[in-house]
Amino acid sequence: MAEQEQTPQRRPGGRSARIQQAVFAAVLEEVVARGYARTTLGAVAERSGVHRTTIYRRWSDLDTLLVEALRDRSGHPVVPRDTGALATDLAAYAQDIVEVLAADTGRIISAVLGSEAARLDGVRGILGEVLTTRRPLSSEIVRRAVARGEAPQGTVDVEVIDHLVAPLYFRLLLTGEPLDEEVARRCAAATAAAVTAGVFVREPGPAS
Amino acid sequence: MAEQEQTPQRRPGGRSARIQQAVFAAVLEEVVARGYARTTLGAVAERSGVHRTTIYRRWSDLDTLLVEALRDRSGHPVVPRDTGALATDLAAYAQDIVEVLAADTGRIISAVLGSEAARLDGVRGILGEVLTTRRPLSSEIVRRAVARGEAPQGTVDVEVIDHLVAPLYFRLLLTGEPLDEEVARRCAAATAAAVTAGVFVREPGPAS
Repeated sequence: MAEQEQTPQRRPGGRSARIQQAVFAAVLEEVVARGYARTTLGAVAERSGVHRTTIYRRWSDLDTLLVEALRDRSGHPVVPRDTGALATDLAAYAQDIVEVLAADTGRIISAVLGSEAARLDGVRGILGEVLTTRRPLSSEIVRRAVARGEAPQGTVDVEVIDHLVAPLYFRLLLTGEPLDEEVARRCAAATAAAVTAGVFVREPGPAS
Repeated sequence: MAEQEQTPQRRPGGRSARIQQAVFAAVLEEVVARGYARTTLGAVAERSGVHRTTIYRRWSDLDTLLVEALRDRSGHPVVPRDTGALATDLAAYAQDIVEVLAADTGRIISAVLGSEAARLDGVRGILGEVLTTRRPLSSEIVRRAVARGEAPQGTVDVEVIDHLVAPLYFRLLLTGEPLDEEVARRCAAATAAAVTAGVFVREPGPAS
């Protein structure tokens, strides 16, 4: 069974899937607890309760395992809710991001980006994918606002969303200050004011 | 000479000071080039041209050396210029921060925070000090704006400055997008619009 060439991890709910989830959870917990430089496949085996040889057979090295575990985690981007108005759309999205960052996912992001793992090509790749996947989703907020006449034509959606969430990541990665409803509300209000003022309208080009 | 108990590093311009600066520069360059987990005192010796035994005598371990080198670097916070108006004060400050982050200092911040060094108590301590030292300086901008009637009474200065610079750190640490005059201008304009709209006025408390 263990030597079969077919991909056992594709059977949802099967033993292989359970093993995979246990190993993924264990490697992320190890990185949060000790940092990446001190994480070993042996410690992952111990924490997951999965036999070392099973882990070695499946994942050739720790880098590969970590990248797979992160990819598995990052597969569920926050989908912005349609609340009918720009201010409340931004507030709802900021609150959803706060909930993600204030929970396990935030601890994992912080631990991975604050470790040597931040240098791995695979990690940079996932980060890039998460940011680019998120953008078309979140830019729906801006498109709807422009359609409703709440935001000026030419508002650059990517800039709006980056400004909305940047102070949240600033807290997560730099100041360590709380991620709560208040900061979500403030980020949304600040961004809405800037959008309304036309700050994010694309300029025709440098110096005319 | 080498065995004297007095503190030779205090003589500005002396041999010890030159050695110290060479070693500090070398450890930071090593971390930028290889990451912290792969940096060794031996590599620092080689890069700095300072003999290994001199380094070992002075710094007991790499953690101590890195923290001292970072402290030496972080001793010059950006002092906000007084341009006479909120919008231009914010723009000038954002531009000054962009210049710092787009240069060597940005590469060092990014390399240190994206490595196991981010977990060191000394590094967290310096980061905390930089943020708290910067705040009273940069909050001058808000105080002047309130005095001129450009910002509402009760505007929380810390929040304003964090919102101003957060998108810059977001680019530095997450997206890798360019840090240039355009982003500085946009951050300043967005923050000014939010300040004017009263977004950063302290609320009396949760639910009345």
